[in-house]
Amino acid sequence: MKKDFTYYSDPQRIQRAVKTLASFTEADRPFTRLVFSPEFKQARQWLEFEFRKAGLDCHVDKGGNLIGLRQAADDASEQKKVIIGSHIDTVSAGGQFDGVAGIVAALEVIHFLNQQNISLPFSIEIVDFLGEELNVWGLSCLGSRHMAGLLTDEMLSRTDQEGRQLGLEIESIGGKRQPPRKPRQDADKIVACLELHIEQADRLETNQTDIGVVTDIPGISRYAIKVMGRAGHSGTTRMPDRQDALVAASEVITTAQDTGIAIAEQDNKHFVATIGRIDVYPNGAATVPGEVNMVLDLRASHEHSRDEFLKQLQTRCMLISKNRSCKIEMELISNASVAVMDNELRQRLSHAANSLNLSHIDLSSGAGHDMVHLSRIAPAAMVFIPCKDGLSHCPEELATPEAIAKGSAVLARTILALASNEPYNE
Amino acid sequence: MKKDFTYYSDPQRIQRAVKTLASFTEADRPFTRLVFSPEFKQARQWLEFEFRKAGLDCHVDKGGNLIGLRQAADDASEQKKVIIGSHIDTVSAGGQFDGVAGIVAALEVIHFLNQQNISLPFSIEIVDFLGEELNVWGLSCLGSRHMAGLLTDEMLSRTDQEGRQLGLEIESIGGKRQPPRKPRQDADKIVACLELHIEQADRLETNQTDIGVVTDIPGISRYAIKVMGRAGHSGTTRMPDRQDALVAASEVITTAQDTGIAIAEQDNKHFVATIGRIDVYPNGAATVPGEVNMVLDLRASHEHSRDEFLKQLQTRCMLISKNRSCKIEMELISNASVAVMDNELRQRLSHAANSLNLSHIDLSSGAGHDMVHLSRIAPAAMVFIPCKDGLSHCPEELATPEAIAKGSAVLARTILALASNEPYNE
Repeated sequence: MKKDFTYYSDPQRIQRAVKTLASFTEADRPFTRLVFSPEFKQARQWLEFEFRKAGLDCHVDKGGNLIGLRQAADDASEQKKVIIGSHIDTVSAGGQFDGVAGIVAALEVIHFLNQQNISLPFSIEIVDFLGEELNVWGLSCLGSRHMAGLLTDEMLSRTDQEGRQLGLEIESIGGKRQPPRKPRQDADKIVACLELHIEQADRLETNQTDIGVVTDIPGISRYAIKVMGRAGHSGTTRMPDRQDALVAASEVITTAQDTGIAIAEQDNKHFVATIGRIDVYPNGAATVPGEVNMVLDLRASHEHSRDEFLKQLQTRCMLISKNRSCKIEMELISNASVAVMDNELRQRLSHAANSLNLSHIDLSSGAGHDMVHLSRIAPAAMVFIPCKDGLSHCPEELATPEAIAKGSAVLARTILALASNEPYNE
Repeated sequence: MKKDFTYYSDPQRIQRAVKTLASFTEADRPFTRLVFSPEFKQARQWLEFEFRKAGLDCHVDKGGNLIGLRQAADDASEQKKVIIGSHIDTVSAGGQFDGVAGIVAALEVIHFLNQQNISLPFSIEIVDFLGEELNVWGLSCLGSRHMAGLLTDEMLSRTDQEGRQLGLEIESIGGKRQPPRKPRQDADKIVACLELHIEQADRLETNQTDIGVVTDIPGISRYAIKVMGRAGHSGTTRMPDRQDALVAASEVITTAQDTGIAIAEQDNKHFVATIGRIDVYPNGAATVPGEVNMVLDLRASHEHSRDEFLKQLQTRCMLISKNRSCKIEMELISNASVAVMDNELRQRLSHAANSLNLSHIDLSSGAGHDMVHLSRIAPAAMVFIPCKDGLSHCPEELATPEAIAKGSAVLARTILALASNEPYNE
């Protein structure tokens, strides 16, 4: 086997693909390519064209995932499958690499196999998972939830503030408004699900390490918090008479932060709590706010940390509600438990990195990923690559083409090892 | 003189006018008729039609005010003027009466004078003052500021988040993009400026009183507060590493509230502090907020209260900035000092209420009004009428047609008294 990663992957081709995808953005708010937006749909068109150029058969599944299929050497109906995927949607004002790096790396694997005329004993599906980022319906990982049969009727019937229903949006992208609520029928044929992603933290960079092999992905719970006070004129509503929903919400926000810091301290920092989205009604400078809606995002490697956080927050919310004369309601809007990555695949990824002379470490993911849901129905694993200063979900997000190429080479080597069933125990 | 208010004013006609103006609203967010919006422009068209039906000569002045002129008995160039006005713009999700009651009452005065064929020794201008409510440019009372020569170049050049420049918006409504920065040339001819308004508090209702004669209007200062942190991924940015701008902003909000409560207590409640508008960037549920912009609205009858509040808030902001690793900036965006209403006009209004057998009390305004700015160039005074539960700037806002008719009758009686120069000392 060749020991140079550039045998498997081409940094220049990677650079071009990343730049092209970055061009599909809201012009005045780079890099913003929200799921279902015109920019997203344009990027999908381009990606489908690239998939076809690489010889892949393309279709959109019922959950709105774009799938490019490379057939196996023999087309027996019992054929096995490998999924390699990530996503091309972004958060608002996000970066150029979160998701995109994984899609581009997956395509590189196909380019390598095509160039070397390699036939495999399994088909490969390159998947652009629909809407991995958290959206206005309070839901992330739309496409991978669908594959695992985890999209519920309640989720599909959610409408955003403009009245757009999630199910109809999925239909608009080529899926079904009511995709089946069960896992892929061929789940038992999937021998591996693989995803490359930027680390979104700085451990690889700090340790000057090429490859992170992910051990587990934390559980993510999201709660809608509604604070109801009473709107009034800012000049005539006397201070003691106020039921200011923003004041009560602010106390919830600082409490969530300070409780989060304390719990993270106890849990060796495997816990984060964020209120990143807030909508104030009516949000006029001369009006005492009457209602506030927020989303609380919790990520924990240990469920007891999350439970302890919620217990403390809810106790404080009762006090805040009383002191600020506002009603506070919390409702769970999504939940994913901790996902452990497949042990054999992890060892194969480490083995592949070794065989390419690439340094590697095991690490836990901070962020959630589509592999959380795929891991419920098939063996799944992830490769992390370094990103500058650990920054992500912001325009400063940066991974080098070489880093993506190294990660892609590890994927390609792992595919070859799976095909030849070579030993993976070190 | 007749002692029944219905001689001067017709509740049914008032009711019809209020309902018609209420119909010009954003459909899904009643009652919203923001200055310069399509709804606002439609309402202006209807109002101009009503002005013309009442025999008024109409024009829009350089500051965008809609003015309906009723000529004096003689048209000597030295003729005197009386202004009666209010506004038809609303806040977001506001009510049907704030401003509208004053416009409708002013029209009632004209209907009365026309019906009785009364000629006056002064002309009357009915004015729909442009944009009285606080707008996205951080400015209220656009039209009355213009009349008093208080619209500055800096104000006119402000742009909102969508890039709309205030001066160009004023031009779009029929004004000038750079109206003259000096008071109306004929200011010395104005013998009275009068405005009827709902009280926006519950003192009249609680005391079962028909009429409030306003003694003074508090000073209003508004500050833009910018909080700058660092955006990051909600899953991978560890709690101790965060520079969450929303957390810092939340602490500013609760501090403003609690400091406001304490200062109001010391100042016998003639002080209010509100943060009603907040814009979070990027406002995504999976992103640590990077920047927050807010507007602080302060209203004080005593300037020392405002100064003490600002001193305490700024001291706390330095601490918050340090503890939350965010930068906090405060900038004054508008300021109006306390306005005292004209003594003679106040006495004439009380005298008119007495002569109509209407109960009346003197009271201080909580809210700001266009008469603040008019009072800088001419004698100005205000009539308050009761509104249900003191609620305003919300859809529940309610004043009865009879209450408006009573206030309008007081205006009409005062006009007649000014015309005949009858004695007003009780």
